[in-house]
Amino acid sequence: MEPGAAGDCRPAKPGPCVSGAALEASAEPGSRMPTVAAVLPAGGCGERMGVRTPKQFCPILERPLISYTLQALERARWVKDIVVVVTAENQGAMESIIRKYRHARVSLAEAGVTRHRSIFNGLKALVGDKPGCELSKPEVVIIHDAVRPFMDEDVLLQVVLAAKEHGAAGAMRPLVSTVIRASADGCLDHSLERAAHRASEMPQAFRFDVIYKAYQQCSEYDLDFGTECLQLALKYCDTKAKLVEGSPDLWKVTYRRDLSAAESIIKERISQEICLVMDTKEETAHEGHVLEEVLKKELSNVKIMSGAMSHGNQDIQQFIFAQCYNYVCLNSRNADFHETQQLLKMLQDSNLSILYPVVVVSVYFLDCQAVPLSQKLESLMWIRELAKELKNRNILLSCLLICYPQDEQKLQENLKQAAIIITALIKDRNPGLVGQLLVA
Amino acid sequence: MEPGAAGDCRPAKPGPCVSGAALEASAEPGSRMPTVAAVLPAGGCGERMGVRTPKQFCPILERPLISYTLQALERARWVKDIVVVVTAENQGAMESIIRKYRHARVSLAEAGVTRHRSIFNGLKALVGDKPGCELSKPEVVIIHDAVRPFMDEDVLLQVVLAAKEHGAAGAMRPLVSTVIRASADGCLDHSLERAAHRASEMPQAFRFDVIYKAYQQCSEYDLDFGTECLQLALKYCDTKAKLVEGSPDLWKVTYRRDLSAAESIIKERISQEICLVMDTKEETAHEGHVLEEVLKKELSNVKIMSGAMSHGNQDIQQFIFAQCYNYVCLNSRNADFHETQQLLKMLQDSNLSILYPVVVVSVYFLDCQAVPLSQKLESLMWIRELAKELKNRNILLSCLLICYPQDEQKLQENLKQAAIIITALIKDRNPGLVGQLLVA
Repeated sequence: MEPGAAGDCRPAKPGPCVSGAALEASAEPGSRMPTVAAVLPAGGCGERMGVRTPKQFCPILERPLISYTLQALERARWVKDIVVVVTAENQGAMESIIRKYRHARVSLAEAGVTRHRSIFNGLKALVGDKPGCELSKPEVVIIHDAVRPFMDEDVLLQVVLAAKEHGAAGAMRPLVSTVIRASADGCLDHSLERAAHRASEMPQAFRFDVIYKAYQQCSEYDLDFGTECLQLALKYCDTKAKLVEGSPDLWKVTYRRDLSAAESIIKERISQEICLVMDTKEETAHEGHVLEEVLKKELSNVKIMSGAMSHGNQDIQQFIFAQCYNYVCLNSRNADFHETQQLLKMLQDSNLSILYPVVVVSVYFLDCQAVPLSQKLESLMWIRELAKELKNRNILLSCLLICYPQDEQKLQENLKQAAIIITALIKDRNPGLVGQLLVA
Repeated sequence: MEPGAAGDCRPAKPGPCVSGAALEASAEPGSRMPTVAAVLPAGGCGERMGVRTPKQFCPILERPLISYTLQALERARWVKDIVVVVTAENQGAMESIIRKYRHARVSLAEAGVTRHRSIFNGLKALVGDKPGCELSKPEVVIIHDAVRPFMDEDVLLQVVLAAKEHGAAGAMRPLVSTVIRASADGCLDHSLERAAHRASEMPQAFRFDVIYKAYQQCSEYDLDFGTECLQLALKYCDTKAKLVEGSPDLWKVTYRRDLSAAESIIKERISQEICLVMDTKEETAHEGHVLEEVLKKELSNVKIMSGAMSHGNQDIQQFIFAQCYNYVCLNSRNADFHETQQLLKMLQDSNLSILYPVVVVSVYFLDCQAVPLSQKLESLMWIRELAKELKNRNILLSCLLICYPQDEQKLQENLKQAAIIITALIKDRNPGLVGQLLVA
């Protein structure tokens, strides 16, 4: 199935997707892609976050953070199995997340009291020696953090291939702050040369036999107090990890502010494209064209695509398949919201809104000189009730009335205002404003 | 002048303020508060941000980041002078920022080619030996980053007092990632014990003579490649800096995501209080009371205060003085937006909106059974034009119509909806939605 095909809206976007061909090209000539699985320790309690919910379960746009991380892992279709390691008390919650957001290839293992013990449990699950267990030992295992949702497939592939070659590999980043060593009395002992040191980030990957042996041999002290898997591979298997430069987006969601930052990144990613839906046969074709031009001009960093409701809806299906999360639907003046209703039906059938809230702005042009505004308003109010229902399905519907005066300059002003309002609705994606009738 | 008095809306809030008494108590018995100045290097070019504007000048809610940092420093009224070090080409921009946001006690110095050279230039400016220079050498000098806007006065005072005693002091934080040392071939050499190391953060402070001597004596290599002022004090003056535990908010705005995080923090800080404005003598008193109850119940983490427009406006003046940035203004049914107009005049006269956008929601109750909605709507549309003007003054006005049906249950639903809409307007503070008429 191609990325973005119907009923499989997880893997492809947002985020770059490495094609099979790119994958072949990345590997050494003649080398074969190893079998790969991933372990995702998610047993932490998130005390640094200052909230009660463990950070991996904190909601972003109402979906738990860990679901975004799973989505990022699933995009790499060559990752065969993903073992999520959670505490016994969070097992039920994790199972609902997997069901609700339709995560595939995911198994659960029980967390230990420290991060290293949890990872070890995840590795043991992959050995697949328990009766009824469908997992099997991979050649390479990825270890990632549940709270790093923005890993792209490219860095994952680099780390995996480096691990295949070197036995171990991990992503790293330059240090943001200088690192210092404190003396026992709380004073500066010395500062480290910033250029010679790096922050060790995730993902990391290992030849399974290397990391499994390291965990089997390592001391209780390491299991309880160690922080670095690469160090275990070095210490117990004499395997020097290859370091791979990661992107800034690999950072770990640690503090409350990181949740806000993650939300902004996600909102920005799903706001890159707007689909303008109209019926080209209708008398609104001209208005649609004018709106499209203004949107393209005003929202120059957003891709504006347009599609017709005719042609058996193929245009619109295509946008839904391509995971566009923003729709501006232009209604003809006579048929009360016929186009919007058709679009909403398609969106509901598609399950597009399972992973992200979908914004729909239902647009109505009105000749303000000919028809008094108030006369039309009440007939448009039905949208409020509809919007309430749709909100439960993660579709955020609002209505935008654009006054269409004879005066060309005034029209341009109104259209510009419409573009500003559409941007506000898409950018903030605030469910508190659904069902409102906005006027440009 | 007391914090928060009229015409001086900078120092007191948001953010904790250490009173004179607390300051005395913090100092050692018998010790005297030293004279203090600050140097703020702001010559960086922000290449990590991925944007052209240097990060200290990036806007957050349309105000440059550095203005927030200056505001945080100015809150400590015992900081006598602040020297901002900028490149020659940014000097004009910096001067406009100082004028526009009315920063006091700020002088400029010219940046060098590296951070250490810039700080040294700032220190030289404080020696005050140039003709016409009004600066004078302080006993203790703070060095802070222009891109750390959330420092609170408490940590600043701790660092200053520790510097007075030890000669040097700096804020530190636990490491978020393990730090590793890479070998020349890009492999792991070893990982550092995370518990023994700290991230060195800002603010730092020094006895002026210590840090000035260190800079005078330090090598060209240190001036060009060094990253740590505390290390210079250690190396050239044998002064071991005292390390002070800082809060997570001290973090440095480094990447684009940090700008989003900073914006969220600022929005959250200015959304802690809502002032409900009403005229208690009017027939709207009952409606106002009902709305107040619902807001208190629905927005349990926000402080809801109410004030009357009568009493010579003293109540409202008090909220403006106390820097409340959110107003819900209840209009009486007969006098068309008289209360809102009065409130807006007071807000414009107060200059409250110089530093942060002020949200005003003008509320109108309407008996939907008795009066058709559409009949009233057009008379409310004047608010759109007014809102456009006010937006230029950083006041975000929108209008909220609450349907007031006989049915008690339906009324409660509408009020709850009103609370959700008010929250959305305050939380997002999106200028794209000003002038809209929302309906609950």
